[in-house]
Amino acid sequence: MSSGALIAMGEAIGRTAPNGCFVNLEASRQQISTPALLLDLDAFGRNLNTMRSMAQGAGVNVRPHAKAHKSIEIARRQIEAGAVGISCATLGEAEILAAAGLPGVLITSPVVTPAMIDRLIELPSSVMVVVEDDGNFDALEAAFASASKPLGVLIDVDVGQHRTGIASSRRAVDLARRIAGSASLQWRGIQAYWGHLQQVLGFTERRRQVRAQAETLRTVINELRAAGLPPDIVTGGGTGTASIDAELGLFTEVQPGSYVFMDSSYGRAELWPDGRCPFATSLFVRANVVSAGRPEHAVINAGLKSFAADSGLPVAIAGAPAGTTYRFMGDEHGALVYAEGTNERLKVGDGVELVVSHCDPTVNLFDFLHCVRGDRLVDIWRIDARGR
Amino acid sequence: MSSGALIAMGEAIGRTAPNGCFVNLEASRQQISTPALLLDLDAFGRNLNTMRSMAQGAGVNVRPHAKAHKSIEIARRQIEAGAVGISCATLGEAEILAAAGLPGVLITSPVVTPAMIDRLIELPSSVMVVVEDDGNFDALEAAFASASKPLGVLIDVDVGQHRTGIASSRRAVDLARRIAGSASLQWRGIQAYWGHLQQVLGFTERRRQVRAQAETLRTVINELRAAGLPPDIVTGGGTGTASIDAELGLFTEVQPGSYVFMDSSYGRAELWPDGRCPFATSLFVRANVVSAGRPEHAVINAGLKSFAADSGLPVAIAGAPAGTTYRFMGDEHGALVYAEGTNERLKVGDGVELVVSHCDPTVNLFDFLHCVRGDRLVDIWRIDARGR
Repeated sequence: MSSGALIAMGEAIGRTAPNGCFVNLEASRQQISTPALLLDLDAFGRNLNTMRSMAQGAGVNVRPHAKAHKSIEIARRQIEAGAVGISCATLGEAEILAAAGLPGVLITSPVVTPAMIDRLIELPSSVMVVVEDDGNFDALEAAFASASKPLGVLIDVDVGQHRTGIASSRRAVDLARRIAGSASLQWRGIQAYWGHLQQVLGFTERRRQVRAQAETLRTVINELRAAGLPPDIVTGGGTGTASIDAELGLFTEVQPGSYVFMDSSYGRAELWPDGRCPFATSLFVRANVVSAGRPEHAVINAGLKSFAADSGLPVAIAGAPAGTTYRFMGDEHGALVYAEGTNERLKVGDGVELVVSHCDPTVNLFDFLHCVRGDRLVDIWRIDARGR
Repeated sequence: MSSGALIAMGEAIGRTAPNGCFVNLEASRQQISTPALLLDLDAFGRNLNTMRSMAQGAGVNVRPHAKAHKSIEIARRQIEAGAVGISCATLGEAEILAAAGLPGVLITSPVVTPAMIDRLIELPSSVMVVVEDDGNFDALEAAFASASKPLGVLIDVDVGQHRTGIASSRRAVDLARRIAGSASLQWRGIQAYWGHLQQVLGFTERRRQVRAQAETLRTVINELRAAGLPPDIVTGGGTGTASIDAELGLFTEVQPGSYVFMDSSYGRAELWPDGRCPFATSLFVRANVVSAGRPEHAVINAGLKSFAADSGLPVAIAGAPAGTTYRFMGDEHGALVYAEGTNERLKVGDGVELVVSHCDPTVNLFDFLHCVRGDRLVDIWRIDARGR
């Protein structure tokens, strides 16, 4: 994909964005009202290409995870960059993306209540879901008995995270047999996600742990094959392990999400064997200084409602004096604390941009991505499934 | 206000909610798709009445803070319960609430960039804003020079939090003089918010610290009076100090926000002199068990995208065995960890409800409040200014 194809712009120098605002494509990023989430389209485009090259080289598919971005526009560009479908964490994400015509939607967590299974029936028949519980299997089978097409189902296998999934290969084979024998469900394969290994520091150590954990997955696959139930799809992996997972010869596809944005948590890991990070940070929170009367810090209009707080503080503050650090000062404010020995000071109205520590829950705080290229605002994309 | 007046329901037993769903008023809370934010209308109504009674008794007004709820429906009920206006943390909140016709909107943080001042000009002339910086004063004065009515302005005074506000009473008097002399701005008074004292544990200790800090505020008020610039409005205070602030004889009004919901952080403070908490918890996150195959914990579909993580973990888990605790397991999942010695176990599909640790940023994660009364879903309110 050419870099120019990344954004669908009109011929004019302006267009109406999904929020109803007219986007002046002559606008600079300094004119964006804050706090705002910025997407650097050049870095984003390079990240799409890097993941595609890695997957093609290893012979696996990519079904990127929409939990990171929750955006139709980004999902479309992932498909244009060769993805076979889109992974969704929730029913709500799947509803939004399937309605927008995105293919190959896989819901990666069980859908368990009667009300939510009723909503699942309304989705296009291409949508697949994971299952692990016998009662949930019964409910899905009964609900889809009168559907025009069977529901594609994968078994979620616990490969060490102990979050969701079946831990016993015998139980996995038993459930696969029930799925394969069902008229209303279609046996598609297995999901195996080692979330606990995504951010193990150091490429070599992370690869060692993945390879050890992979034996569990290999056993399940072998027992399914022995039972005459080979999985068409073996899906899993995230940004932290995708390149390692792809080389195992077990997965047919990987589900990375954060690679499009690259937050500072993933930035600390060595994602490639040479220690180099192959992805560029494309996501930033832009804020303005609202109070500058104190010698030790300036205060910006971005706090707990602009940054997810679970994985540390935002870092790498562009527009601030060298060495400046951030600390939270409540829901809507943060302090930019000057480094010792620095005399440079910010003033009210100054704009700064910060790298976030955890992209998924941070993106979930905003309704729009302000797409920039260099100094220019070139588009606004809706974060369509935010909060769903 | 009668409890029945709290919700605007049609005559029918169902109505169309703002999200386009038909709300079946016969529905039980078990039928709500999860994760969902629940508002107990009875507790909420009692909280409105309690704050009104406290303020009336002390002879102060209430301008409740919408940063906690971001909801037109809640703001309307606060006005019905005697509030003189609504405080807003951001321009975006003010835009939403002013457009809905809510009176007395005060923006409690400075509006500093040219693009955002342009948006401020579009708001109804009743909207007021705080100022602290001379450059910001100049920009506002120039921008409102051609407006039909002057912009009401309050000076933000730093009373110990060191976040926003002027720390010097001489500078406050100088700026008040400039405002009073401006044709395009109207001098309205001062804001003094001691955010750092809101959750000081123990009523007596919190009152001691408030009274000490109040001397700064008293000095500013006295100097303004001496300069012939008495403040019409002296606003400040939050849920933690409102009852103390109201007795000081300095404030004309208080700005509490969290009192409508009562999260577990405020639940730990003694809010009233007798140690009793006068407010009831009205806000809950509802979730369902999606995985139950492990002996030590069950997994629910509510994680970092359903609970703000800055103030500790959700607590008081209704629907789970006694002693069960929560821990985060990623963006969309949490573990309900069983207490030692408990044999009771949850199963897939079971519903649970949790009390959140910090209401403001948690409400900001959801688009809708599911309003319940006892076991019944009776309305759905939009969180209109979420993310703004």
